[in-house]
Amino acid sequence: MSHVVDLAKELISRQSVTPLDEGCQSLMSDRLSQIGFNIESMVFEDTTNMWARRGTESPVFCFAGHTDVVPTGDLSRWHTPPFQPTIIDDYLHGRGAADMKGSLAAMVIATERFVAKHPDHKGSIAYLITSDEEGPFINGTTRVIDTLEARNEKITWALVGEPSSTHKLGDVVKNGRRGSLTGHLTVKGIQGHVAYPHLADNPIHKASPALAELAQMHWDNGNDFFPPTSFQIANINGGTGASNVIPGDLNVMFNFRYSTEVTAEILIARVLSILDAHGLDYDIDWVYNGLPFLTGDGPLLEATKESIREITGYDTDPQTSGGTSDGRFIAPTGAQVIELGPVNATIHKVNECVNTADLELLALCYERILEKLLC
Amino acid sequence: MSHVVDLAKELISRQSVTPLDEGCQSLMSDRLSQIGFNIESMVFEDTTNMWARRGTESPVFCFAGHTDVVPTGDLSRWHTPPFQPTIIDDYLHGRGAADMKGSLAAMVIATERFVAKHPDHKGSIAYLITSDEEGPFINGTTRVIDTLEARNEKITWALVGEPSSTHKLGDVVKNGRRGSLTGHLTVKGIQGHVAYPHLADNPIHKASPALAELAQMHWDNGNDFFPPTSFQIANINGGTGASNVIPGDLNVMFNFRYSTEVTAEILIARVLSILDAHGLDYDIDWVYNGLPFLTGDGPLLEATKESIREITGYDTDPQTSGGTSDGRFIAPTGAQVIELGPVNATIHKVNECVNTADLELLALCYERILEKLLC
Ligand SMILES: [Zn+2]
Ligand SMILES: [Zn+2]
Repeated sequence: MSHVVDLAKELISRQSVTPLDEGCQSLMSDRLSQIGFNIESMVFEDTTNMWARRGTESPVFCFAGHTDVVPTGDLSRWHTPPFQPTIIDDYLHGRGAADMKGSLAAMVIATERFVAKHPDHKGSIAYLITSDEEGPFINGTTRVIDTLEARNEKITWALVGEPSSTHKLGDVVKNGRRGSLTGHLTVKGIQGHVAYPHLADNPIHKASPALAELAQMHWDNGNDFFPPTSFQIANINGGTGASNVIPGDLNVMFNFRYSTEVTAEILIARVLSILDAHGLDYDIDWVYNGLPFLTGDGPLLEATKESIREITGYDTDPQTSGGTSDGRFIAPTGAQVIELGPVNATIHKVNECVNTADLELLALCYERILEKLLC
Repeated sequence: MSHVVDLAKELISRQSVTPLDEGCQSLMSDRLSQIGFNIESMVFEDTTNMWARRGTESPVFCFAGHTDVVPTGDLSRWHTPPFQPTIIDDYLHGRGAADMKGSLAAMVIATERFVAKHPDHKGSIAYLITSDEEGPFINGTTRVIDTLEARNEKITWALVGEPSSTHKLGDVVKNGRRGSLTGHLTVKGIQGHVAYPHLADNPIHKASPALAELAQMHWDNGNDFFPPTSFQIANINGGTGASNVIPGDLNVMFNFRYSTEVTAEILIARVLSILDAHGLDYDIDWVYNGLPFLTGDGPLLEATKESIREITGYDTDPQTSGGTSDGRFIAPTGAQVIELGPVNATIHKVNECVNTADLELLALCYERILEKLLC
């Protein structure tokens, strides 16, 4: 059994459901400190973060990731206990196997091998690890970044271990992410009895045409790097539960995933103009979940593409689709950010698993990237 | 202080929040049995009902009503304790004062006075009283009616004590009610992550144009007796609460109040054709809350109009607008049904109250109606 899988199993056996870390970061820092890393634990509220760095020079190559995992979901649907790592037919099963304790293990093993071969590498190697990536991401990566920025400590290249692969290891890397913007809309009407509709004003009736228009709206065409901006209503709630009461208001929560062809300001203006055109009386609150970012051609993307081709024999496909990641907090500092991790087919599901050979390949890719950038 | 108000206060002081009766019916039956009524208590599940009858002959004049009341709502907003009847400036305050313990008191007093003057009246006087008119109306009036029908006991004229008046006592009586039909609609989509909308199918997006069309639809023009049919969406719920999940289904509950220009079957067919035209995948359940009914010219309406004119000096206005009442369960047996009760401005609200002089007038109207029909 390989070292990568061994360390992954140790991490999975810790029940670090977000925002808990449950000693995962100590497990990593114990090994990193033995090979010359300086360790800083940064605890903010309920969140445990780690900043580890080997070397003081630039450029700074940073592995980024999270030790927390999403809840298990229905335990009865797991074939194996989620926190008891189990290998079945070359797949390591357990919560966090793919997202992203397998990646964390591959990072540490790759770093140990690299440092053993290149103890005097140039620049620095760093780790930015949090325990709230799966939670509200308030006290995690964003606060570590704030701390680093305050002392002017810069990351040159960040490699985030999120499971980017679709069918086989490294077939996809993420070299950017769409922006995410959430709107919390309350459409106001007048509550009343359904038998006396002339005394009431039904906010569901008033809002429906506006929601229909928003749902079918074409926001942009995307561009070479980003798919078209997408709008989705995630939640809608109105009514008292009774069949004879016209509700006084309607609550709608919607989310944009947007390309660099628009801005949050443009999207907000367009939504407001549609709501106003329908004569709605409303309140709206906006939550900026993250700006879009893009890591174009450059040393990090180059090293990543070449390493994957050399290790796996095939070309990777850089994409910007999919959900947000903590890369959105690192990119605004000027860092280049790439996400490379295992196949994401089972993440956040019951029976999460990862191919054990893929973890070996991932460690080899990580090591090769280090060699290309720091040798 | 009058007898009507005294009895109303005794009834209000019993905390008979639906489906509780809390001894209200005993209070009434104790007095009715003293003047020759035969009392039958009919308890079905959690509901207490009373069928009382004086005489064995036809025609049968029946007072109908309920001893249950709606919950108090926010106690801090009551100026007086809701179950502590209190007179302020000629208004009797308390939960149920207007809906409909005041009417029950007026019925009993009117009956006592009438029987004292006319012990050998023709036909019969009856009471059909339930404790679940404000609840799910499953074990109340409808089951008493079933029992009577099973033994072929018929009501000729029913006078329901629901608060029909708008500005002054008796200005409005209800001589019919619209039908009520509720639809429970589930629009089915495919759940997914907002970042991958092509893998999901958003039921809120799909349903919005159909709901907009239903909300603006013209169903009929009503007729001489009924206002136009009205459609109201009372509840809409979809989403997991998270901003990044496209829900798998959307639940919508809507209600029709419909005239005799359409039928439930016509309304259902029209709704289904709209849902189908929008290509929705859906389940729908229908609840038939009551058929429309109408009591046209005849002895009961005549006696009611004349009595109100003689007691108050003004003409009443027979209407079919407003909510449903238990009259919908009595009318299908062939009975004529009229609703006459106090001003409904405060019903189901905090600080419910009724004018004490109106309760006196109401008892006089009830007594006069008895005289016109049973002397
Ligand atoms: Zn993750
Ligand atoms: Zn009532």
